[in-house]
Amino acid sequence: MKSHTEYLFFNTKQRKEFVNITQNIEKIVNISNVQEGFCLVSAMHITAAIWVNDEEEGLKQDVVEWLENIAPSKKNYSHHRTGEDNADAHLKRTILHHQVILPITKGKLDLGPWEQIFYAEFDGQRKKRVVVKIIGE
Amino acid sequence: MKSHTEYLFFNTKQRKEFVNITQNIEKIVNISNVQEGFCLVSAMHITAAIWVNDEEEGLKQDVVEWLENIAPSKKNYSHHRTGEDNADAHLKRTILHHQVILPITKGKLDLGPWEQIFYAEFDGQRKKRVVVKIIGE
Amino acid sequence: MKSHTEYLFFNTKQRKEFVNITQNIEKIVNISNVQEGFCLVSAMHITAAIWVNDEEEGLKQDVVEWLENIAPSKKNYSHHRTGEDNADAHLKRTILHHQVILPITKGKLDLGPWEQIFYAEFDGQRKKRVVVKIIGE
Repeated sequence: MKSHTEYLFFNTKQRKEFVNITQNIEKIVNISNVQEGFCLVSAMHITAAIWVNDEEEGLKQDVVEWLENIAPSKKNYSHHRTGEDNADAHLKRTILHHQVILPITKGKLDLGPWEQIFYAEFDGQRKKRVVVKIIGE
Repeated sequence: MKSHTEYLFFNTKQRKEFVNITQNIEKIVNISNVQEGFCLVSAMHITAAIWVNDEEEGLKQDVVEWLENIAPSKKNYSHHRTGEDNADAHLKRTILHHQVILPITKGKLDLGPWEQIFYAEFDGQRKKRVVVKIIGE
Repeated sequence: MKSHTEYLFFNTKQRKEFVNITQNIEKIVNISNVQEGFCLVSAMHITAAIWVNDEEEGLKQDVVEWLENIAPSKKNYSHHRTGEDNADAHLKRTILHHQVILPITKGKLDLGPWEQIFYAEFDGQRKKRVVVKIIGE
């Protein structure tokens, strides 16, 4: 069994931002030299998510608006008594989920025709980290 | 380490449909001959999900209604400017999540008493694909 | 390849309760003696979830209230025609998702600075089970 671990770092310009990381992950898969295995991509900070979906501007805008609708940024969260103001980011991350497992087949990411991998930041403008871990052979 | 990869294909009669695939996955686990490992089941199209829950008609109806309530099918999504009409399907897939990892123990799916695996289609009536990938020994 | 499987049992005092299981998982990782691998933590009953987020009382209260808001406990679910009264628990589990994969690096859980692992019970006061399965080397 082989394993390979890397970390991606993000410091987004916007507080909320979607970053397409598909090519970053493809490169790490190549470096790992794993032919058959699993690639875990997991946000290590609890106000960010990993989302697999479509690289289409309208849809990304829809998702942002929808998340704001079902998990609104507002003042009166109990979490904010700690001095934080990002409770909505914790909820938005929860909806999208913070991790995916990508299959690796014949040395390549085994994705569907439209699957793209996004780092979804909900409380950025500071350094955040994602772990990418591959196991296989 | 062993690995085994198969693809399931779906072309549902209804646009939105839940298909119980537990037996399909059990068969693939048997074929793989893996005794201890993980089985990834992941929808490769971005308007479908994989959901582990109860095979109970009433509950499935509740889930469909609840998803329609929090991620409604409606006209005015930005994504629809591309000519698509399925933005709600992308959101519904996001809520249910598009993949699960099933543990394999002593050569069998290690599921709880009520866990059943569903392919959840939100924009069907055309050919769609799911990857099933097992690694273990 | 090594594998290691354990089960955690819960019988919460409250019907809905969050239990921090980070130390339980750390102990199992130690026992497994796996240096590089994946640790699956998956709720085996379909009214409980596994949630990775912050050990902060206010935030946990926010999440409980938010889940009640978007997946309310109420009488008129179709599932309740079976005699059950826990349809909301199935929906709440679906939002949080029922499983996570934790990376193991250099023999330890490779978590971010604030990541804590919770067993999220939505229909407790009875015996429930979680599978913890590690594969790696």
